[in-house]
Amino acid sequence: MKGEHFLVAFAFCILASSFASAYDPSPLQDFCVAINDTKSAGLNIPRNTGNQVGSNVTLLNVDQIAGLNTLGISLARIDYAPNGGLNPPHVHPRATEILLVLEGTLSVGFVTSNPDNRLIEKVLNPGDVFVIPLGLIHFQLNVAKTNAVAVAALSSQNPGVITIANAVFGSNPPINLDVLTKAFQLGKNEVKNLQKQFGGNNK
Amino acid sequence: MKGEHFLVAFAFCILASSFASAYDPSPLQDFCVAINDTKSAGLNIPRNTGNQVGSNVTLLNVDQIAGLNTLGISLARIDYAPNGGLNPPHVHPRATEILLVLEGTLSVGFVTSNPDNRLIEKVLNPGDVFVIPLGLIHFQLNVAKTNAVAVAALSSQNPGVITIANAVFGSNPPINLDVLTKAFQLGKNEVKNLQKQFGGNNK
Amino acid sequence: MKGEHFLVAFAFCILASSFASAYDPSPLQDFCVAINDTKSAGLNIPRNTGNQVGSNVTLLNVDQIAGLNTLGISLARIDYAPNGGLNPPHVHPRATEILLVLEGTLSVGFVTSNPDNRLIEKVLNPGDVFVIPLGLIHFQLNVAKTNAVAVAALSSQNPGVITIANAVFGSNPPINLDVLTKAFQLGKNEVKNLQKQFGGNNK
Amino acid sequence: MKGEHFLVAFAFCILASSFASAYDPSPLQDFCVAINDTKSAGLNIPRNTGNQVGSNVTLLNVDQIAGLNTLGISLARIDYAPNGGLNPPHVHPRATEILLVLEGTLSVGFVTSNPDNRLIEKVLNPGDVFVIPLGLIHFQLNVAKTNAVAVAALSSQNPGVITIANAVFGSNPPINLDVLTKAFQLGKNEVKNLQKQFGGNNK
Amino acid sequence: MKGEHFLVAFAFCILASSFASAYDPSPLQDFCVAINDTKSAGLNIPRNTGNQVGSNVTLLNVDQIAGLNTLGISLARIDYAPNGGLNPPHVHPRATEILLVLEGTLSVGFVTSNPDNRLIEKVLNPGDVFVIPLGLIHFQLNVAKTNAVAVAALSSQNPGVITIANAVFGSNPPINLDVLTKAFQLGKNEVKNLQKQFGGNNK
Amino acid sequence: MKGEHFLVAFAFCILASSFASAYDPSPLQDFCVAINDTKSAGLNIPRNTGNQVGSNVTLLNVDQIAGLNTLGISLARIDYAPNGGLNPPHVHPRATEILLVLEGTLSVGFVTSNPDNRLIEKVLNPGDVFVIPLGLIHFQLNVAKTNAVAVAALSSQNPGVITIANAVFGSNPPINLDVLTKAFQLGKNEVKNLQKQFGGNNK
Repeated sequence: MKGEHFLVAFAFCILASSFASAYDPSPLQDFCVAINDTKSAGLNIPRNTGNQVGSNVTLLNVDQIAGLNTLGISLARIDYAPNGGLNPPHVHPRATEILLVLEGTLSVGFVTSNPDNRLIEKVLNPGDVFVIPLGLIHFQLNVAKTNAVAVAALSSQNPGVITIANAVFGSNPPINLDVLTKAFQLGKNEVKNLQKQFGGNNK
Repeated sequence: MKGEHFLVAFAFCILASSFASAYDPSPLQDFCVAINDTKSAGLNIPRNTGNQVGSNVTLLNVDQIAGLNTLGISLARIDYAPNGGLNPPHVHPRATEILLVLEGTLSVGFVTSNPDNRLIEKVLNPGDVFVIPLGLIHFQLNVAKTNAVAVAALSSQNPGVITIANAVFGSNPPINLDVLTKAFQLGKNEVKNLQKQFGGNNK
Repeated sequence: MKGEHFLVAFAFCILASSFASAYDPSPLQDFCVAINDTKSAGLNIPRNTGNQVGSNVTLLNVDQIAGLNTLGISLARIDYAPNGGLNPPHVHPRATEILLVLEGTLSVGFVTSNPDNRLIEKVLNPGDVFVIPLGLIHFQLNVAKTNAVAVAALSSQNPGVITIANAVFGSNPPINLDVLTKAFQLGKNEVKNLQKQFGGNNK
Repeated sequence: MKGEHFLVAFAFCILASSFASAYDPSPLQDFCVAINDTKSAGLNIPRNTGNQVGSNVTLLNVDQIAGLNTLGISLARIDYAPNGGLNPPHVHPRATEILLVLEGTLSVGFVTSNPDNRLIEKVLNPGDVFVIPLGLIHFQLNVAKTNAVAVAALSSQNPGVITIANAVFGSNPPINLDVLTKAFQLGKNEVKNLQKQFGGNNK
Repeated sequence: MKGEHFLVAFAFCILASSFASAYDPSPLQDFCVAINDTKSAGLNIPRNTGNQVGSNVTLLNVDQIAGLNTLGISLARIDYAPNGGLNPPHVHPRATEILLVLEGTLSVGFVTSNPDNRLIEKVLNPGDVFVIPLGLIHFQLNVAKTNAVAVAALSSQNPGVITIANAVFGSNPPINLDVLTKAFQLGKNEVKNLQKQFGGNNK
Repeated sequence: MKGEHFLVAFAFCILASSFASAYDPSPLQDFCVAINDTKSAGLNIPRNTGNQVGSNVTLLNVDQIAGLNTLGISLARIDYAPNGGLNPPHVHPRATEILLVLEGTLSVGFVTSNPDNRLIEKVLNPGDVFVIPLGLIHFQLNVAKTNAVAVAALSSQNPGVITIANAVFGSNPPINLDVLTKAFQLGKNEVKNLQKQFGGNNK
């Protein structure tokens, strides 16, 4: 039943966007919703941070936000475990980010592009905000003994996330050993160990 | 002293953007900061809602967010008084908005464009989110007996705000009586009273 | 028969646009037409202005302009009754507008965003033009004893129109009384009367 | 005196745009005006068409439209002499165009890109409109015994115009003879004659 | 079999792009590929320049570059015959171009828009580059006794090409004789001869 | 002397761009050049690859390409040493890339975003091309016994480059040890060694 409604709504959205153009610098209708949202987004509920890095990112997708389609913005909640919960170095290939700390104390940073690779870093307390420019490598580290929570807004409806260590050492299939040993100036065994830890097993 | 640094930084930013183009679909440098931010944004601090509508919007500007320039996103905190605190009907001429409720219970809504003028409305609790499409009239009303707090992300570094009642009845100079009596189907005295309340005195 | 041609053309357009991207800052083909236009647009024919506000807007849509699709521009004719014909305060959520007066004398204006809400106003005679920036509230009033006619160009193929009074007091379903009484500083009965006039009946 | 005001306004506009970004898909303030417009645009006044092609294009620029800056749209009036007044084949490198006929009868056309080079042509009477896609070669010919007048809206504040014959045969300095003889399959003397007529004298 | 894969991939791409928006200033997914590329692009292979103008343009399309979809860039190889091989005057309606000479010596030029129609010209040797702004008329001429080869990158996945002489004198159906005689200041027979040469036969 | 011309040209460019808008989906003038280019770009000259990774990237900047400003495209030459010359894993935060192999044999690859982190890889010979989507991690490895040369076109006039290993382990100041040990699951000494090799010395 739900699927049926989806199909109808979906057909309408294709109709709307098939007449659209990348040249028009605005959405081409008020909004384009597939199914009406009834589930709560639940961004107030603490997430489980009992994993290797001690953090948990909840990115809201189109099933949870009515009207998200075609509008170029999205939202995430991030939970950090006490004493070093880490949102590890990553990039968003298609979005700038604003981070707002709701609870706890975070050390946040991003690295500028070549040749400077300057680290811009700041300690944030509740109510502080920080902007991460489009496509730059950034991270957040919980530097206090309590949980931390932040909200991030991103300037795309599908910003994408690339966790550096996972993409480099855990890709599927794995990246050639010669690339990684030379790029990171590591021995073959060191790279193989890293690949094992990140799930990219080189034969 | 501070002014001097500003001038230097400002000159650099002009240099960067004078080579920029509206055609390039991305920022033209990593970021462009005028002065380094040292004041806290303080978005955690409750604002005074003791005013006529019972709400208070704190929009973060370029003095408070390092790196906000050139990146097309901004952030606001909104406080609502208990029992009817209202962020009155308004539009953002240059941005889509995502609203996230942090505390309390809000009734939020927006109205679609002509000819339907359909009201899309929803009651939000902490952790719920809502998207307001570009340029549509919207509002939030505190429908509970406690304070409410929300965070809004907007898809422009300068989204603009037009509070409908203030722009229509409180503009400076005031809009011609003939326009308002005919548009709102009100008597001349009714319009004059409204203009008096919103500070636009028609002679 | 006509429907059949439509389907074929439509399939082609989907094909073209499904490969398109919002990132490409231009249309992705010369043009994308559904059905060839044979009806005249008839923008030279005076429209009936015998209605409550004394104006009539004829916005050209895709059935009347061959090649309108994907190209980000549209056109409208506006007729104004003598002695106060009014195009009431409204916004276009997705377009800037240029207005050109063809006949008669119009008082045109727009209101800037908060906090200034400055009214920029001008009397236009035939041959005069006026620009209304993206998303701002604007109106035109016929201030002479003769008919007036204007042409408006808009920077989107689907600019959208939101007539302020209709969206605020005539939405479907109607906006909560508490929102409107507080926002416009009116009594409940005054708001109910306005809602009745604009077709939004609050129970 | 006027110059002084210009300087002040100009400084303000630089300030506004230096913080702007090509990435932000909207203007960054309500508007950005250099000098207030007091001269009438006078688009109602017939222009002199007593020239070689029998047409006259009046493009409105920033001195004549308050608020044109930063808003991506412009407007032109075109007058055509009776019996063959011609707006000769040209392209707008940065804009789509909508043409609206106000008086007379025009044959209008554009040619699609390679390999089809299909001519899309139509005879327009008062009230008819026609869309010319971005960057395509187009023209209008007065095919009646009376004057003709049209209004064109363009999707850029500086659309640019390239009259094909003038750019090809009248450039300064002139294009190499070898290029033109081979491209147009003409003899050297024929090309030299064309260049003489269009003011590009090849030595 | 291949067709079947295509259908599945195609359906996925529609799904992705139907939710896309022209307002989002970036692609909406990493990439959108229909079929995986296995044929070589073969841009290293000299092309046959034994035609009337003595040049040959190989534009890579979506069948030859995996991942080209939605990413706003394309590439071409151009071969020029010795002693006057010509890429004749043309425009790209939807792209800026960078040209890099790999072999030989080219005289390249473009003409600015009205009213200046200034010719910007330069002789390029291997390793030299030249930029042609969006929508301007440009050409390349081999001015040496050897073959020449260049690579051109264009800022759109479908830049379009309009060869001036072919579009003006070889359109289908042909452009009205009155337009071309007046625009190019040629006699009727001269225009008819040109149309015959370019395949546009006026009856 | 040269500086003086620069200043004049620069003032003109500011003038042009101060009136520009991010909303206008095209450049606002034909082009905007600071100084006329007289030096050869020299992209035909092999570069020295005698460094740690065995590759050398020559990105053309505004001093070398007349007319590059405001047009959203750029070009690079990349040289690779025989037997493993590597352009190490990096991202362009503001551009899609097309790579064309001129000489030699390269293994090229990019990794998709989370959660798949799929490696898309291909061996390219002269004349082959490959597209790297906006913001994804990618690399090229010379897998033959001869030199290799490639040309890359990028969809921004300032695409930016972030070499992953340098940004992560060689930033200035260095990234906190806790971030890197946890993100890469390495010991403190291993991270310190990496930082030493990439010039980011942690105290």
